[in-house]
Amino acid sequence: DIRTMFYIGGNDSMDTVTSLSEYATEHNIEGIQFVGCPKTVDNDLRIIDHCPGFASAAKVLATTQLQTWLDYNVYTREEVFILETMGRDAGWLAASTCVTGKVDLLVLPEEVFDKDLFFDQVREIIAEKNKCYIVISEGVRYADGTYLSAGKSKDDTFGHAILGGAGQALKEMLIEEGVTSRAKVQDMSTLQRSYAAQQSKVDVEESFRLGMSAHMHSMDPSFTGKMVALRRVEGDVYDIEFFAVDSKEIANHVKGFPLEWALPNYRGVTQEALDYFVPLLQGQPHIYYDDNGTPRHVKPYYLR
Amino acid sequence: DIRTMFYIGGNDSMDTVTSLSEYATEHNIEGIQFVGCPKTVDNDLRIIDHCPGFASAAKVLATTQLQTWLDYNVYTREEVFILETMGRDAGWLAASTCVTGKVDLLVLPEEVFDKDLFFDQVREIIAEKNKCYIVISEGVRYADGTYLSAGKSKDDTFGHAILGGAGQALKEMLIEEGVTSRAKVQDMSTLQRSYAAQQSKVDVEESFRLGMSAHMHSMDPSFTGKMVALRRVEGDVYDIEFFAVDSKEIANHVKGFPLEWALPNYRGVTQEALDYFVPLLQGQPHIYYDDNGTPRHVKPYYLR
Repeated sequence: DIRTMFYIGGNDSMDTVTSLSEYATEHNIEGIQFVGCPKTVDNDLRIIDHCPGFASAAKVLATTQLQTWLDYNVYTREEVFILETMGRDAGWLAASTCVTGKVDLLVLPEEVFDKDLFFDQVREIIAEKNKCYIVISEGVRYADGTYLSAGKSKDDTFGHAILGGAGQALKEMLIEEGVTSRAKVQDMSTLQRSYAAQQSKVDVEESFRLGMSAHMHSMDPSFTGKMVALRRVEGDVYDIEFFAVDSKEIANHVKGFPLEWALPNYRGVTQEALDYFVPLLQGQPHIYYDDNGTPRHVKPYYLR
Repeated sequence: DIRTMFYIGGNDSMDTVTSLSEYATEHNIEGIQFVGCPKTVDNDLRIIDHCPGFASAAKVLATTQLQTWLDYNVYTREEVFILETMGRDAGWLAASTCVTGKVDLLVLPEEVFDKDLFFDQVREIIAEKNKCYIVISEGVRYADGTYLSAGKSKDDTFGHAILGGAGQALKEMLIEEGVTSRAKVQDMSTLQRSYAAQQSKVDVEESFRLGMSAHMHSMDPSFTGKMVALRRVEGDVYDIEFFAVDSKEIANHVKGFPLEWALPNYRGVTQEALDYFVPLLQGQPHIYYDDNGTPRHVKPYYLR
């Protein structure tokens, strides 16, 4: 008796929504609708202002950035700290950490990695304050298209394509080339997309509202092959509204972090970028705790 | 006009308290006291029931364990997940993640790493549920005393002593030896000791009370070369009381996780261990947030 399939995800998922709805149309299959619901921490979908899930991952990252920055400032010694975020093709997550105002250098996958320029920047910042805090996106590449991490492991006798991530590769380069003698890496890995105890309330509420909007849209039997999107409402107070787009407009495109929002020489982001990020990270949902001291979660059906 | 020096830290710090107070005694320097205040996420101090700081780090780790476990269960594919915790010599932090009941295998630095036995356990668990969640302490060693991570890099043509951590080394071994084809590592690095947004309220309150106890003890001019310790009060309801020990009783000793609390074959910890951990992780302090959505922190004097 399933009449509507809500498909939740990113670019690939919207491609599936498109294919399924086209298949149904071509084969005159009636009475079934395919509705896309955007959800990706990468925030790399076109048309939509931002993707549910992104703001919470950004909040975990910004919180970690701030707290590891405080940690490395406990010591007066020279130290480079490298925070590696997700984002193979889009630097939204990495860039969002700049809301703390504590990021010295930001390396985005949208920019070709210029090692000499970058190392000069690291040296300059170390000379100024004996420390340098770097945020790097996992997908950072050289001019020839190779990943920073892959570039390192090319010489590896084990034959692994990628040994460590971009952060680890950068750390090894910085030490080998004598830019610094001490560097630490924090690879955020799976934690950044699953640390529900640090969600953004704005994100949680918008995700719920988006799901509800998809549900309401689905009352129209012709609503298929569509994704529910959201945009900001103009005005002084942050607010959003929902609308619908054809899922094929979203599928298989990647919306990168706008290069005009990145400052030159890896020095972070513009005020316009901060104005985009900050409203998304607001509010902390109430968390219920289990007797063992960890957050309580709704159990997915397949784990009951 | 400094009369009392409160020295906060672990084993090395208590050694400093001992040395300074002995120096003052030997040189007849009067009117100055040296008081030790325990604080280490490693939880490896003798005599004291648990160390301020430990419970909060344990809470971050347990929360991450649970949430990354939920994340990897989204997929039905075979997958090994490896969470690496701090603990070069003591496995308290790694062991504490077992409060969630979701840890399949636990590798402690107190036990010699038996690769064949361990790999058999991984195979058995994968055969049973297609997945295996491993928690490993950074300080895990082979029978000959070499670290898991160092053992790996011995064959490395780059000549690095340690390329990745224990988790990364374990991942590479599991894949190279065909135990699994897919393994992911979450190295908790600096985050686990600095993620103040996920502190244990019990820890925060006890830390404050311990500081106050140290302050009160210092009213006695003969109170020097001592550390303020805490023990559990007998009874059904968790509570602690403070007492004093000579700092030389603490200095340069390491209290490992008791092996009688570890289950055979890396299968986690006993109920007694859980009964030890669970009361420590209780409660969530109220967090104040800045306008940018990240937690507000008291600025240390050197950052003002």
